[in-house]
Amino acid sequence: VKLDITQDLLSDNDALAEHTAKKLRDAGVVCVGLLSSPGSGKTTLLERTIERWPDASRLAVIVGDVATEADAERLRAAGVIAIQVNTEHHGATCHLDAVPVAEAIESRELGSTDILFVENVGNLGCPGGYLLGEHCRVVLLSVTEGADKPLKYPKAILETDLALVTKTDLAPYVEVSVEGLTVNIRRLKPKADVLAISPKTGDGLEAWLAWLRARLDALRAG
Amino acid sequence: VKLDITQDLLSDNDALAEHTAKKLRDAGVVCVGLLSSPGSGKTTLLERTIERWPDASRLAVIVGDVATEADAERLRAAGVIAIQVNTEHHGATCHLDAVPVAEAIESRELGSTDILFVENVGNLGCPGGYLLGEHCRVVLLSVTEGADKPLKYPKAILETDLALVTKTDLAPYVEVSVEGLTVNIRRLKPKADVLAISPKTGDGLEAWLAWLRARLDALRAG
Repeated sequence: VKLDITQDLLSDNDALAEHTAKKLRDAGVVCVGLLSSPGSGKTTLLERTIERWPDASRLAVIVGDVATEADAERLRAAGVIAIQVNTEHHGATCHLDAVPVAEAIESRELGSTDILFVENVGNLGCPGGYLLGEHCRVVLLSVTEGADKPLKYPKAILETDLALVTKTDLAPYVEVSVEGLTVNIRRLKPKADVLAISPKTGDGLEAWLAWLRARLDALRAG
Repeated sequence: VKLDITQDLLSDNDALAEHTAKKLRDAGVVCVGLLSSPGSGKTTLLERTIERWPDASRLAVIVGDVATEADAERLRAAGVIAIQVNTEHHGATCHLDAVPVAEAIESRELGSTDILFVENVGNLGCPGGYLLGEHCRVVLLSVTEGADKPLKYPKAILETDLALVTKTDLAPYVEVSVEGLTVNIRRLKPKADVLAISPKTGDGLEAWLAWLRARLDALRAG
């Protein structure tokens, strides 16, 4: 995938994101953005996804964090290309924007990739407002964070395509139900796609993989 | 507490924060900032604190959220003055800054207050960079978020005075220990104050109340 990034694009986040999305689509690569609060389990979900995908070499991840290379190291150990972006070296530290994502894509050969995941900095607020070039966006909401978070962070629901209610194995200990979270998600977006998953037990992961495969099939069918 | 906010102060966040801190100190009010990821339990901790404080009418809270009045309603039900700031109506939505905090203080009579808590928007990244007028800052780190968060969000440790490792009742279910989190906190700040608490079971809350009382005594002793 060659992006051909011009100076004009570097100064216009949304134009660069659109350009990135088009180039990836033309190359047959689905780009899936992941966002959530810190510690909701984005990296763990990707580890479980990599284990289950028929050919891990066809997945790649760009991962944003304020600091550390820890997540990229975990993902490389799981068998995929993983490119770490540390936002403390950029102007805005609390979210990715289109420039480091485009630079990361330029830095590696992703031609045989099926899905490029872009795991944003753990932050339920800011990332929703910045396009990166993703074709779809997924928000993770852990039951441990409480049932009220969709209402308190409306962009995280309104600007995403799928809500994953996650860590469902912990629901009995925190008095938060999948149903309670789903009701609040759908108060904001009545037809929201919602899946309940537990990366720890594996519950719900088949439905998540089917959702990903459907996105890939749709992109490649044009 | 009368702040006398001038136009100069409104345009300089740090100067306004310093002005607010001085006015509160002069009035004998300790201002304690709380920050954490979404759903780490800041509001629940305040509910438990209010129940245990000798005179709840001497506590007050300014609470920031992107949207909803939910937290202020919970805190009022617990018996304190609670002023909600919705950051979606301000320029920066992901954290409080000194202006809405000063405006909130001006809006109510807080003269007989011992402790004014400022509960920031749930966000482990951005709030650390903005002074509000607090005399001390507390970060909550839930065991459910994983042991790596201090390293990934260094400002949340470096710019705070106390780290509360919280939801310790859930530690057995998430394979994250208080010790593991404490080690990572102290890799960044070797002498960090750390307390382990469970607002659910009450474990550790006496130490937290003692820490608050010590801050109040120190301020009033000058």
